[in-house]
Amino acid sequence: MYVPPAAAFEIPLIVEKGEAQFGIVPIENSLEGSISRTYDLLLDSNLRVCGETELRVVHCLIASPETRLDLIKRVYSHPQALGQCQAFLKHLNCELIPTYDTAGSVKMIKEKGITDGAAIASARAAEIYEMQIIAREIEDTPNNFTRFFILAKQDSPPSGNDKTSIVFSVKHRPGALYEFLRKLASKNINLTKIESRPTRQKPWEYNFYLDFEGHREDEAAREVLESLEKTSLFVKVLGSYPKAK
Amino acid sequence: MYVPPAAAFEIPLIVEKGEAQFGIVPIENSLEGSISRTYDLLLDSNLRVCGETELRVVHCLIASPETRLDLIKRVYSHPQALGQCQAFLKHLNCELIPTYDTAGSVKMIKEKGITDGAAIASARAAEIYEMQIIAREIEDTPNNFTRFFILAKQDSPPSGNDKTSIVFSVKHRPGALYEFLRKLASKNINLTKIESRPTRQKPWEYNFYLDFEGHREDEAAREVLESLEKTSLFVKVLGSYPKAK
Repeated sequence: MYVPPAAAFEIPLIVEKGEAQFGIVPIENSLEGSISRTYDLLLDSNLRVCGETELRVVHCLIASPETRLDLIKRVYSHPQALGQCQAFLKHLNCELIPTYDTAGSVKMIKEKGITDGAAIASARAAEIYEMQIIAREIEDTPNNFTRFFILAKQDSPPSGNDKTSIVFSVKHRPGALYEFLRKLASKNINLTKIESRPTRQKPWEYNFYLDFEGHREDEAAREVLESLEKTSLFVKVLGSYPKAK
Repeated sequence: MYVPPAAAFEIPLIVEKGEAQFGIVPIENSLEGSISRTYDLLLDSNLRVCGETELRVVHCLIASPETRLDLIKRVYSHPQALGQCQAFLKHLNCELIPTYDTAGSVKMIKEKGITDGAAIASARAAEIYEMQIIAREIEDTPNNFTRFFILAKQDSPPSGNDKTSIVFSVKHRPGALYEFLRKLASKNINLTKIESRPTRQKPWEYNFYLDFEGHREDEAAREVLESLEKTSLFVKVLGSYPKAK
């Protein structure tokens, strides 16, 4: 069942209530970094990560079908999108107007019948609202990818080419993290992401967000996770899922 | 010499040109995570981190001196600030208008003489623009801190209670990172932050952003850094500096 896009923080709730079978939430962007709020949501949720996907962010300049580039006086978009198209926007010499979201700006231009303004959003937004793409790939850098987690009530069974995402917390002492990485290395398990964040509940207590290759049901991963549970303040397996690509 | 606030990406340039002796850039926020763009700036810059400081983010509702709470119909601020004050804003039942920055919204309200609108910004912004603070600490969570790096042409001499920030890149193989952490642990050096980011230049190549306790001139740290240089694709010491607090 397709449920229209909601604010990211509402997505886990919609899946938990069974109104949708899957939810897709952004987890990191190559330019902006990890999306900590998504991790916070996952910590509070019983859902599992059952998949990942990566999308290249391609920004388009979108306007109503009767608009031409030389008529545009204002450009509307989320501040991050405006910030990611600086070189292109410099040439336009328009007023830049920050908004809540990219696709929402296209919708607003359509609904208000604006013909001297444009929005920055995805080609898909132009399609949905039947608007004109005036310029494509206007972003400063092509290295702009967003990685998404696919959430469901269960994670995925082993596929032979999986990743596992976990969050755990260890006491702040030399070697606490190293001890875990040593076990991963001894089992020949590749680490694909690691990040620490202070928990803020207690000083010197950190949460580690970590992805490794393999499925949580693999024997090697199971051993590593079992011993991690003994040495950590807490461990939460967010899920195992087939690798993207 | 005090140089007025500039866009964060201009700050290293101002210090490099000698127009200011120090620059202050945000590096991570407890709710939003690391500020990857600042790390990107530091990778491209010759400046060093000579200090760190942490500020609690306190949001205030700010309006012109003649405005009362019941007259406010619109609230202007950066989308992140609006998002961090949801509970308070729900009671107000105002239109929320996203803007580029928090303090800039206060300035705009003053300059345009708006009396039926308010901005969300720091108490300091109200002071600077001589505006009225209608409500203080309107943020949803008090656990909202931003950590800043202080940049200069040189980092700081050893103080006996220091931290060192580095960026390095290792080949993607089990144990590459673990090897470095093992050396830190063997020297009894505490890790205070770790984060991986794909470099995007080559697949399977990662940059690690890492803070540890101690000064780069300490004998233990020197040994660890020297051996890291031998096993990494590249290492950049961002600087050593006295610990905040």
